[in-house]
Amino acid sequence: MKLTKEQLEEIKDQQSQKYNTKRVTAPELENILYEAIPILDHGFIRVVDYMGNDTSIVQAARVSYGKGTKKVNTDSGLIKYLMRHWHSTPFEMCEIKYHVKLPIFIARQWIRHRTANVNEYSARYSILDKEFYLPKPENLAAQSQINRQGRGDILEGDQAKKVLDLLKTDAERTYNNYEEMLNERYDGTIINKDGVGLARELARMNLTLNTYTQWYWKTDLLNLMNFLRLRADSHAQYEIRAYAEAMLDTLKKWVPITYEAFMDYRVGGTEISAKGKLIIKKLIKGEKVSIDDSGLSKREWNELMISLDLKDKLI
Amino acid sequence: MKLTKEQLEEIKDQQSQKYNTKRVTAPELENILYEAIPILDHGFIRVVDYMGNDTSIVQAARVSYGKGTKKVNTDSGLIKYLMRHWHSTPFEMCEIKYHVKLPIFIARQWIRHRTANVNEYSARYSILDKEFYLPKPENLAAQSQINRQGRGDILEGDQAKKVLDLLKTDAERTYNNYEEMLNERYDGTIINKDGVGLARELARMNLTLNTYTQWYWKTDLLNLMNFLRLRADSHAQYEIRAYAEAMLDTLKKWVPITYEAFMDYRVGGTEISAKGKLIIKKLIKGEKVSIDDSGLSKREWNELMISLDLKDKLI
Amino acid sequence: MKLTKEQLEEIKDQQSQKYNTKRVTAPELENILYEAIPILDHGFIRVVDYMGNDTSIVQAARVSYGKGTKKVNTDSGLIKYLMRHWHSTPFEMCEIKYHVKLPIFIARQWIRHRTANVNEYSARYSILDKEFYLPKPENLAAQSQINRQGRGDILEGDQAKKVLDLLKTDAERTYNNYEEMLNERYDGTIINKDGVGLARELARMNLTLNTYTQWYWKTDLLNLMNFLRLRADSHAQYEIRAYAEAMLDTLKKWVPITYEAFMDYRVGGTEISAKGKLIIKKLIKGEKVSIDDSGLSKREWNELMISLDLKDKLI
Amino acid sequence: MKLTKEQLEEIKDQQSQKYNTKRVTAPELENILYEAIPILDHGFIRVVDYMGNDTSIVQAARVSYGKGTKKVNTDSGLIKYLMRHWHSTPFEMCEIKYHVKLPIFIARQWIRHRTANVNEYSARYSILDKEFYLPKPENLAAQSQINRQGRGDILEGDQAKKVLDLLKTDAERTYNNYEEMLNERYDGTIINKDGVGLARELARMNLTLNTYTQWYWKTDLLNLMNFLRLRADSHAQYEIRAYAEAMLDTLKKWVPITYEAFMDYRVGGTEISAKGKLIIKKLIKGEKVSIDDSGLSKREWNELMISLDLKDKLI
Repeated sequence: MKLTKEQLEEIKDQQSQKYNTKRVTAPELENILYEAIPILDHGFIRVVDYMGNDTSIVQAARVSYGKGTKKVNTDSGLIKYLMRHWHSTPFEMCEIKYHVKLPIFIARQWIRHRTANVNEYSARYSILDKEFYLPKPENLAAQSQINRQGRGDILEGDQAKKVLDLLKTDAERTYNNYEEMLNERYDGTIINKDGVGLARELARMNLTLNTYTQWYWKTDLLNLMNFLRLRADSHAQYEIRAYAEAMLDTLKKWVPITYEAFMDYRVGGTEISAKGKLIIKKLIKGEKVSIDDSGLSKREWNELMISLDLKDKLI
Repeated sequence: MKLTKEQLEEIKDQQSQKYNTKRVTAPELENILYEAIPILDHGFIRVVDYMGNDTSIVQAARVSYGKGTKKVNTDSGLIKYLMRHWHSTPFEMCEIKYHVKLPIFIARQWIRHRTANVNEYSARYSILDKEFYLPKPENLAAQSQINRQGRGDILEGDQAKKVLDLLKTDAERTYNNYEEMLNERYDGTIINKDGVGLARELARMNLTLNTYTQWYWKTDLLNLMNFLRLRADSHAQYEIRAYAEAMLDTLKKWVPITYEAFMDYRVGGTEISAKGKLIIKKLIKGEKVSIDDSGLSKREWNELMISLDLKDKLI
Repeated sequence: MKLTKEQLEEIKDQQSQKYNTKRVTAPELENILYEAIPILDHGFIRVVDYMGNDTSIVQAARVSYGKGTKKVNTDSGLIKYLMRHWHSTPFEMCEIKYHVKLPIFIARQWIRHRTANVNEYSARYSILDKEFYLPKPENLAAQSQINRQGRGDILEGDQAKKVLDLLKTDAERTYNNYEEMLNERYDGTIINKDGVGLARELARMNLTLNTYTQWYWKTDLLNLMNFLRLRADSHAQYEIRAYAEAMLDTLKKWVPITYEAFMDYRVGGTEISAKGKLIIKKLIKGEKVSIDDSGLSKREWNELMISLDLKDKLI
Repeated sequence: MKLTKEQLEEIKDQQSQKYNTKRVTAPELENILYEAIPILDHGFIRVVDYMGNDTSIVQAARVSYGKGTKKVNTDSGLIKYLMRHWHSTPFEMCEIKYHVKLPIFIARQWIRHRTANVNEYSARYSILDKEFYLPKPENLAAQSQINRQGRGDILEGDQAKKVLDLLKTDAERTYNNYEEMLNERYDGTIINKDGVGLARELARMNLTLNTYTQWYWKTDLLNLMNFLRLRADSHAQYEIRAYAEAMLDTLKKWVPITYEAFMDYRVGGTEISAKGKLIIKKLIKGEKVSIDDSGLSKREWNELMISLDLKDKLI
């Protein structure tokens, strides 16, 4: 990650801001506020604003349940209770805003989470930076043969080199031609003083999907956790997971009690179907189980056995 | 409005909080943070948290439009431009949270604005307070004879007295019977030591719709303005307008530049249909206009003439 | 449930409609289209329109995954896969619209599900019907002593009679006074020819929360299932569960394959926390388990043991 | 537009479907159901399902306003009234689903409308088709010098030829290298029998933004009109406008009465600010107007004069 001089100055300015407020704060998050946390080769995330902390969740729940919550005498106990029973609205009372720089093909995955507010850099108005995502060799994986959306072994030697060469050469060439069509370099230099440039809203179509874009992304805590549960999961594409994992760390700094409950009940938890539960009950009683009368598909059976560490039962 | 001792203490505690933050603040809003602003006879609104200020809107817009916004050299000019051209996403970057106490029949209107987060006091868990909305005499209006959802003249004398008596007596009686069924007074006193109480989730059905409830209500600035445009309008029911008008004042303290643009382009603005525009063009040219060849209904015609202060053209 | 003559005629007219369409249909659902299914004493649900069926989900999934879905060779297998892995967007491709008549206190619970479209009967414009919900004796439960939002034993004898009397008398009296204030009966009769009526938007505040209202409620299949999972659950209030259970039946007629998967993975399924999973693994291995080193609260421990039918382990 | 044999067969099958239904239908829309309407060089839109028609809006409004709507005696009058007064919920009662093929850079604009359901072809699972958008010469516009997001004159001669060559060559080269990296052609041919292919989720990043993708897109009538108002507007980018204009035509076939009201009040309408209204009033009275004491910026002033056809007043 390489920040421009303007960006570095803006961050320094923001970090030196010091205001008084009567609002609740999250001291651990304040410590890293505005800081650019590097992701992939040129990307970053920065927390640029937030509202509320763990106590805001408790406050909202106590308004809802009135005197009814007096029995749960700790904030931690109440937050765990809310998480376990899928109470959603108290978690919507906190809000966070990120500034994110990310490759376009990842932005396209990300934007499918619709319950968030977004302001993206517009390539209709302005010229995109000359920055593309190029995977590190250890992330250059082959197509999985068993999972249509998964990755297999790491590519090696000549093939890895060839792939990286193609990605780099194509991104650079299409970017150079983008500048040619615009008749303007990304730093504002006019290429041909007597020429005219193609409209920006058209020229951008020549860029490859690994070009970096950036946006402000704001969401509430509930929807942030929904996003992280899917995108920090081992089945998520590596590149978006890299962002989600850094965001998990900001979650911990922001709402540490909620973070603990989230890791226990959501990230570390499992869902068992009605049919799966019957199998578990039999296993606990020491009865014999078999896929044949389980009603489970082979894939479901194996997923269940893996989640229970029963590798000898895989079929 | 009469706050309980606990509420007064909570507010005092919150108002004496003093934290350092690197986040942007809205100093005018900080001054009234947590304060209970009285509405109707027992209701209130309190701003209990917020995120962002006018500069957050500008910051988001400048990320979107990149160097493209450099020409608009003032924050005020940019915010007016965004408002005029219905750019919505930069206004979504600010968030505000209110604590509101309001009669149930108004809560039912309010909740129809779905793009907000809500935590309401639950009468399944806890007993509702013994407080009902009783209109002031000057707000006791007759049914309008021309507008099915409007109000006509103020009721007077005996009739007004009779209506207020009925409202008061019925609210008190149903509330007393609510307590009877619960076998518990609102202050926690058990009525009959050997009796059992009806489930709270059932007993509440005996309450009248003017009983007060309360909630935390959180929304972004764009949706707040959508709410205020409809609910601070002269066609809105008086009781919800009373809340909206107090909220307009908090909007002014929070984002003063946006407030000015909102009053000019939205609240004070008018929409003209294609057919209406043809009439206006004729009027400017000094040509004669008539409803007959206008394509407008009588109602539309009159709405247009009123908006142009042409009362002699009413039909 | 008692339908007016106009309603009966409208339903008859709608049911005799016969159109040709190239759209996919759900024959079982067509059979009950427009029919009023009675709920509680005066309520009903009617399916009044729908879009799509099980094949629409499959079609959307196949567009998303392209040739990648060819291996899953049955519609049923694909729908089960989507449900198990929480793929949400294909289920959003189907839409359903209900006409519902329900008590106001239930409408207030229902409306908290925000991702739906609603058109409710407006008591600002029109006079509400003279119909209130009065529970059957077997649904008159005492407040639970262990669960603040639950029900305990059924009330009996004199106490039950007294509660029903209070509910009935209060609802009738407040409704009569509503008519008095309006100076108009619900059938349109003017009470005092020389009098004027209070504005409808004000008079309605005198009604009790068990008064019936009605609305059109439209949602997509994903959000319908989210609603049903919460509201057909045994912890939901009986009165809303009565609606949810009737809607479960319409779900089965509309999308029978999705219904099966929903019952297996969602309604019959369980979520296990990371800590709970450790206990299950020990139980399967025949190891001794104890709450002391489990990290679970007493309540969590008991919930887990109940879900596994291990009643001897309750503490 | 060139459809594959499979697509043509699927469309033919769908168009020959003939079902009976009790649901309301939109006969004009049925006539073109499933038909692929060509947009740009390789794109299309197809209406693949819908729910409701003009009568559904009326029905919902009549439930809301009860007997209050009896006075408006025609469906057309009621729909115009609803549109004029921004009543939104009755228009949410209709739903439509499109199958759209479009270039990725347009898909990125489109997806910013969040209140819709989307299932997009996934390049993690499957290989994208070898199809790119190449503008027609008459759409190859220069960057506007006055409007940062607009288009200026059409490029001509050699420059136009050069731009088209660059776009074509770059799209083809990056696509060929995409196949190389995948070790598989788009028709399924394996390139090197002993080689392994890069994971699809990675290889896709080499494609340019004019590559075509496709999706199912479903939304309600209200949000469709919001989309069309912005995207069929003359300020929208030509390429998305081409889609919006074809969709306007499907709107007309689906809900002809709503379409008329939409064209009059929204598309053909104008919004006037409070300050602008003062100017209009003066103009009508024949008074002199001047930007100096108007409070309008130069840009606002000119926008107003253009909307009133007062070109002599431009400054």
